[in-house]
Amino acid sequence: LTGSRQMTPLVKKYFLRLMPPTDDDKTPDVERVLAGLQGEGIDIKYVPVSVVRKLPEALRADDFEITATVSFLSEPELIDVESGERLDKNFGLAVDLGTTNTVCSLIDLKTGGPAAEASATNPQTAIGEDILARIHHCLNPGGLEELRLAAADCVSGLAEKLANQTGVSVNDISCACISGNTTMAHFFLGLDPYNICRAPYVPAANRFDAFKARDIDLGIKPEAPVLVLPNVGSYVGGDVLAGILASGMADRDGISILVDVGTNAEIIVGNRDWLVACAGAAGPALEGGVVSSGMRAAPGAIDRIKIEAGYEPSFSVIGDVPPAGMCGSALIDLLAELFRTGLIDGRGKFIPAKTKRIIETEAGLAYSVTGDIIFTEKDIENLIRTKAAMYTALTVITTEIGITFNDIESFFVAGTFGEYIAADKAVSIGMLPDIPLSKFKLLGNSSLKGANLTLLDRETLENIDKIASMVTYKELNASAGFMSLYRAAMFLPHTDASLFPSLHKI
Amino acid sequence: LTGSRQMTPLVKKYFLRLMPPTDDDKTPDVERVLAGLQGEGIDIKYVPVSVVRKLPEALRADDFEITATVSFLSEPELIDVESGERLDKNFGLAVDLGTTNTVCSLIDLKTGGPAAEASATNPQTAIGEDILARIHHCLNPGGLEELRLAAADCVSGLAEKLANQTGVSVNDISCACISGNTTMAHFFLGLDPYNICRAPYVPAANRFDAFKARDIDLGIKPEAPVLVLPNVGSYVGGDVLAGILASGMADRDGISILVDVGTNAEIIVGNRDWLVACAGAAGPALEGGVVSSGMRAAPGAIDRIKIEAGYEPSFSVIGDVPPAGMCGSALIDLLAELFRTGLIDGRGKFIPAKTKRIIETEAGLAYSVTGDIIFTEKDIENLIRTKAAMYTALTVITTEIGITFNDIESFFVAGTFGEYIAADKAVSIGMLPDIPLSKFKLLGNSSLKGANLTLLDRETLENIDKIASMVTYKELNASAGFMSLYRAAMFLPHTDASLFPSLHKI
Repeated sequence: LTGSRQMTPLVKKYFLRLMPPTDDDKTPDVERVLAGLQGEGIDIKYVPVSVVRKLPEALRADDFEITATVSFLSEPELIDVESGERLDKNFGLAVDLGTTNTVCSLIDLKTGGPAAEASATNPQTAIGEDILARIHHCLNPGGLEELRLAAADCVSGLAEKLANQTGVSVNDISCACISGNTTMAHFFLGLDPYNICRAPYVPAANRFDAFKARDIDLGIKPEAPVLVLPNVGSYVGGDVLAGILASGMADRDGISILVDVGTNAEIIVGNRDWLVACAGAAGPALEGGVVSSGMRAAPGAIDRIKIEAGYEPSFSVIGDVPPAGMCGSALIDLLAELFRTGLIDGRGKFIPAKTKRIIETEAGLAYSVTGDIIFTEKDIENLIRTKAAMYTALTVITTEIGITFNDIESFFVAGTFGEYIAADKAVSIGMLPDIPLSKFKLLGNSSLKGANLTLLDRETLENIDKIASMVTYKELNASAGFMSLYRAAMFLPHTDASLFPSLHKI
Repeated sequence: LTGSRQMTPLVKKYFLRLMPPTDDDKTPDVERVLAGLQGEGIDIKYVPVSVVRKLPEALRADDFEITATVSFLSEPELIDVESGERLDKNFGLAVDLGTTNTVCSLIDLKTGGPAAEASATNPQTAIGEDILARIHHCLNPGGLEELRLAAADCVSGLAEKLANQTGVSVNDISCACISGNTTMAHFFLGLDPYNICRAPYVPAANRFDAFKARDIDLGIKPEAPVLVLPNVGSYVGGDVLAGILASGMADRDGISILVDVGTNAEIIVGNRDWLVACAGAAGPALEGGVVSSGMRAAPGAIDRIKIEAGYEPSFSVIGDVPPAGMCGSALIDLLAELFRTGLIDGRGKFIPAKTKRIIETEAGLAYSVTGDIIFTEKDIENLIRTKAAMYTALTVITTEIGITFNDIESFFVAGTFGEYIAADKAVSIGMLPDIPLSKFKLLGNSSLKGANLTLLDRETLENIDKIASMVTYKELNASAGFMSLYRAAMFLPHTDASLFPSLHKI
């Protein structure tokens, strides 16, 4: 996307060599700098008083050679001045503010490239494990502020870590773009989330005007603009919008589907003319916590697994550490492999005679991967529920729109549950529809990518509200046929094998 | 000025009766309020996050009846929301931030009328009596911030006093306009004033973008926009611009002169097409401190004085208190009366034989007004210096422009040294030129009036920068003939009596 047109970062630096004032030129300091920027074609509309305060000293510290930082988030604004030439020190912070994890990427706004990436557990999990517990916590006096500061501190901490890694100062981070679901955005901004989870489910706001880092205690350049990507409503947040941006689906004529599996699963269908979204709690089984040996995609997680001849497993592990569990992509792999090798039947039940890898555990029969890492029939059942919910949601949404899977030109798969899901495995368990594999495009963390894109492209910024207003939200559970479709999908790959014709060929 | 066109206050309140959200209308809180305002013809461009934070509760506290406060200082911005109908509670604060005194007027933005006025000694005087001492104080670490906070506290204190007097809350003060000289504006904003008093005399800024009250610790509505009137340069500040606004001279075809005597004296000449300014330290003698029984125009100050038959004085006193001294207008009266009655000669020397009111003091001969209040030959000498400086400045500036006093259509006299100077008395001592008395227009505190006008009129706001950019500053001391003209003016009314023809008729 960025390759095809000129990069236009939200914040840019300009180096100015100005003439010092004389008896014949008593232009004040601010107007002198603005005139210099006008010479670069920049017509500044606003200078905050905090920047005016820095100017007299900054101008005289290096003989009227100065680097001006200009925000283009709305009207051009002078957000910082530094003495000397500091063009190289201009970074943006892309933030995926997840319910469970926060991931930050430091973007070099001069080159457009990533400088470093870091993640941390969202400290709000210590206050309330899930979203509802946190919303409930806001009923306590100071509860909302506590959640707000936890998120701000987490992002500030990651920003500092990234700055240290890159050898720059947090003051060199001159803008931030935050992508999160509707409730996370509310927590981050200190907005009462109470009405999000209570009928008729109304957020405080869908669009958030940009504000300054100092307004929300974010430890980057104080006047840095902070953009929180807009929600579409209570159930479709800025993270989904980020996915739409990252996929580019709203720029295309052909119809795309985007599936984003995080703590929740969201599905978007559409093209440049229309976009339909639906959401559901499909994700937990893939994020760890529900599956016995499941874990987040983090060092120690098995992320890819295969069952070789003799039913022995082979796998790869994230990081140079011993395996500690399996992340979502491995769980999908393993379910697919167990089914492919005939170790489980279509209902997900083990056929034990075949190998000693199938063991008896307290939780019933299980496949032993390595050490303590096992995959039980209960786990398989949970995973089948998840895949059935996903496939049913895809079926319902496309049916309601009036298209078939064959009408899909591109199928984007995003999620933080593993670096990349293997589309063929997901198809083979009936989680994703049986369409040509070439149509699947893996996006990874599309929430982070969308925030990243926005930092680098003012055209994207201008399109955000337009795209957000295009999205229609559909309530899935309101569909009459949902439950019977769901039951039919609780089989590997599906009770109706004709829906997965390519699997017969194998 | 405000009478001739519709009042357009910088901040306006709107009462909205909104529909609560339903299953069919899940419009978020912010967008719901913005839609309501759009129904009133207001297209809001910005909502600060602090206002979004208040919205969910404010909307639901009174069944979605809400009062929205909108700033029109730049693009329309929603600066507050309150539950219920609060249209009457909308005030602006006009501030004359003087070197010695701060005067605040609380303006009812609904009616346009003044609600209350209060003044206080500028607490910066305790840090440094004059401007130069304060600029010097800024060389100490934290010195500038100390001066800034002193000014902010002073204005905040006056705002609270005015709110209490009017029976409203400081949160009902939803905008402020500050008028002060260039250095005072720098102190108020925390801008380094060092280069103002050092060649080539360059301010940090001439134009100040509006900022929020919370940005400068001003105790009014936190998101209230605060406008500091622009300077023309180091020697012509926003207070002079306020005078130009208050006089309306920049709207006229005919040429006007505006004389503003505060701690300094400023002169502006011009019309709608051109404006020339000059300034000088002419004022101290009229503000107390220099003259032995001089004092500020405050309770206890004699503000008007006459010498009756038998050389006995009659006078009026500000406030219902015994006289404690004489303010500037009384000093001018008394000098004029002493000369008219022949108690002093043209050089300002007493002719003692005439009355026992002329007494011997340690400081030489003096006229005894009442009690300890006397007017010495030394005082007269100081006052003659002041009036000579003023007349010389008027002569030089008009001569340099190429006009005569007869070309003047209106002569505005402003100043805080007394409620109103008596123009005829000022002419009779040769301080002001001998033009028809009907041409003199007394403005009182034009700095405060200009700030007041700006709060009520967006057209004025739009014209401010244009007017500021029209003003040319002329250095008076640079005029070759200044000193000889000054010496010639050191006589009552003037060594060249032909300059004051009307006085011969008396």
